[in-house]
Amino acid sequence: MTLRSRPPNPMPDRAGQRPRVVIVGAGFGGLTVALQLAHAALEVVLIDRHAHHTFQPLLHQVATAELEPSQIAYPIRQALRRATNVRFVRAEVVDLQTQQRRVETSVGSFAYDSLVVATGSRPQLDRVPGARSHAFALKTVSDALAIQNQVLSRFEQALHTADPATQQECLTVAIAGGGPTGVELAGALAEWMHTVLVKDYGQLDCRQIRLVLLHSGADLLPGFHPRLQRYAHRHLQRRGVEVRLRSRVQAVTATAVHLADGTVLPTRTLIWTAGVVASRTDRRSDRLPLRPTLQLLADPQVYALGDVAGDLPMLASTAVQQGGTVANKIERPLPFRHRPRGAMAILGRHAAVMQVGRLSATGVVAWGLWLAVHLLLLRGLPQRLLTLLHWWQSYWFRDRIAQGLWSSAPPQSDRFAPHRFL
Amino acid sequence: MTLRSRPPNPMPDRAGQRPRVVIVGAGFGGLTVALQLAHAALEVVLIDRHAHHTFQPLLHQVATAELEPSQIAYPIRQALRRATNVRFVRAEVVDLQTQQRRVETSVGSFAYDSLVVATGSRPQLDRVPGARSHAFALKTVSDALAIQNQVLSRFEQALHTADPATQQECLTVAIAGGGPTGVELAGALAEWMHTVLVKDYGQLDCRQIRLVLLHSGADLLPGFHPRLQRYAHRHLQRRGVEVRLRSRVQAVTATAVHLADGTVLPTRTLIWTAGVVASRTDRRSDRLPLRPTLQLLADPQVYALGDVAGDLPMLASTAVQQGGTVANKIERPLPFRHRPRGAMAILGRHAAVMQVGRLSATGVVAWGLWLAVHLLLLRGLPQRLLTLLHWWQSYWFRDRIAQGLWSSAPPQSDRFAPHRFL
Repeated sequence: MTLRSRPPNPMPDRAGQRPRVVIVGAGFGGLTVALQLAHAALEVVLIDRHAHHTFQPLLHQVATAELEPSQIAYPIRQALRRATNVRFVRAEVVDLQTQQRRVETSVGSFAYDSLVVATGSRPQLDRVPGARSHAFALKTVSDALAIQNQVLSRFEQALHTADPATQQECLTVAIAGGGPTGVELAGALAEWMHTVLVKDYGQLDCRQIRLVLLHSGADLLPGFHPRLQRYAHRHLQRRGVEVRLRSRVQAVTATAVHLADGTVLPTRTLIWTAGVVASRTDRRSDRLPLRPTLQLLADPQVYALGDVAGDLPMLASTAVQQGGTVANKIERPLPFRHRPRGAMAILGRHAAVMQVGRLSATGVVAWGLWLAVHLLLLRGLPQRLLTLLHWWQSYWFRDRIAQGLWSSAPPQSDRFAPHRFL
Repeated sequence: MTLRSRPPNPMPDRAGQRPRVVIVGAGFGGLTVALQLAHAALEVVLIDRHAHHTFQPLLHQVATAELEPSQIAYPIRQALRRATNVRFVRAEVVDLQTQQRRVETSVGSFAYDSLVVATGSRPQLDRVPGARSHAFALKTVSDALAIQNQVLSRFEQALHTADPATQQECLTVAIAGGGPTGVELAGALAEWMHTVLVKDYGQLDCRQIRLVLLHSGADLLPGFHPRLQRYAHRHLQRRGVEVRLRSRVQAVTATAVHLADGTVLPTRTLIWTAGVVASRTDRRSDRLPLRPTLQLLADPQVYALGDVAGDLPMLASTAVQQGGTVANKIERPLPFRHRPRGAMAILGRHAAVMQVGRLSATGVVAWGLWLAVHLLLLRGLPQRLLTLLHWWQSYWFRDRIAQGLWSSAPPQSDRFAPHRFL
């Protein structure tokens, strides 16, 4: 990490000002803190590299063209319009100088009295050779659109190649990671590829379409009840997903995934959902050692929450709870007590798994609850209506409204020179 | 134009086959021909560089975050699902070999019996120094999203700069071209910047926001009735648009637009809508000399329609009419007779101009009709419902659902190294 050239610092002198809280990251945790500190006797600065907050639990539906970005992304400035003491800064953070209590960003430097680190997690691509160049992630809206483009472009390519091996590579999608993200994405991709894309690419042999879910553990959905794990496994298999347990990716190339057991899976598309593993002994870990109050062991002025913090499940509900606690605590420190809200994952049409405490459900009931909960968690009425409309089109017509509209610009070339015709 | 390396030609031998029509371009003209030739005793190949057809008349609303891509772009494969004799090829055309009756594309070579050239127009950026590097166009969905990103990014930049000159450059948007596209875009930008963005960027001095419409002619909206021209001019001025007639852009730099009369307009955003001028004496012209039957003078096997053809107005309605004629004519040549359908342009809330034959209208009536006509012209029910929802949000709340969600990825940099905290 290096310091970049900095424009003049736009911040005024801090003497005699209200205490300033700087929050880095406007995900579920950071945005919750900012909204809860609105109207407090504090100055709040919220920094994020994106102009929008992303409702990550629905990203897999953007990747499969079921939803559009507007349904799961909210402009942060709009969310904060009434929070007059909160200032949003769209910037890249380049350094956290905890000694000087200062955050360096691409647009200037911000002094703080309290710092909240809510920077989330990132896909762990560095340990597997080739993964950084060839694997797709699913953390941002751009990631989701990139996956959509990739699947569509490879189907297009399969149409125009005569080589059967290339065709098979194009029509195979591999997913690494059998946690909720990987499982939901596998279910959504199975539905999209087998019921929608086959209509658009009728000239292809549909039996060549192959979807492989690679999971390093012995069971999908770690942490879920074994009954739900088995249900998810069976359900995905029935929808045409090849589930490979105890499979570890060893290397990735442009045309294949190499597994630890020697298997070579020919594919041009690997999506990496294995995420960040909490590991305090590992220097690469993004997770930070914390006090029970979510303050850093080393520096009580610094709070951490969400995926970046401790060993709790990396769930939106955890981050939101922690956000509430941190917002209160910035005034009077109290220990954070995690109240698990349960977990759920959608697998496809009429199928989901969910558990809340000792209760668990599968099938149509879980599916309906999954839809209802996610609809209610969306931020605004327009977003909910838009989502309903897209879901309806997808459910009733087995079709997509918003497919393939964001494809990257085609290679630049001149238009034909008209004089050739004359 | 050069031939690229070509994969093996996927086309079978043509002997004994049904006659093949190759259509280049899936805009209004090309798509109409393809749909009308569905189920004819012909083989039809439709080639486009995008996977979607774009409803260009509403692009200015995507540029101002009022609509999302899904409302104005339709996947071409979905449109052609029932047309079993039509094959869509997503490819870049690299050469039209009219001697050999062959179209060379990035995915292979297509022989034809009839060729339909419907490649549209492109912004004429080559004649003005700096325009190709610094000006924005408004022809595609990507163009519209790029304009949206540019305006938002410059507002962000204005927040973080201390230099008043830079701030003024950031908050000024110039539009070149006072035809329907430029006028509609100016009206839409005025509304967006003055009623929506001021809510999100309250820290900025709104009086600095400047929107300039540069038009080389003596009147806006050439071809419209003078009463409508005057109405549009007055209306845009009242909404805060500076209209500069008889202004020709001479050069563009990253921070200014230089006019022929010596004026220098400091701005970082110039949007070029001046388009292609029909000019047969100019070798750069994209418009082709045609017979009355829309066949090329030089080669009757080649048809041209839409913006690329002749001297008719570059309107969707013209292209659709021509498409119908060409589709019929491929079987029995008849001269094309243009039946003008009228023209309309929206200026903003409660304001539009329209003329049909000798009838003309302005104000609320024209505005309501503009909305109704464009809603009906959209392709499907879901698109109409989505559009209504977005328009409602924009009209009632003076707000945007889909603002700033497609911003280009921020500069890559590492996340902070955790050990700095410890």
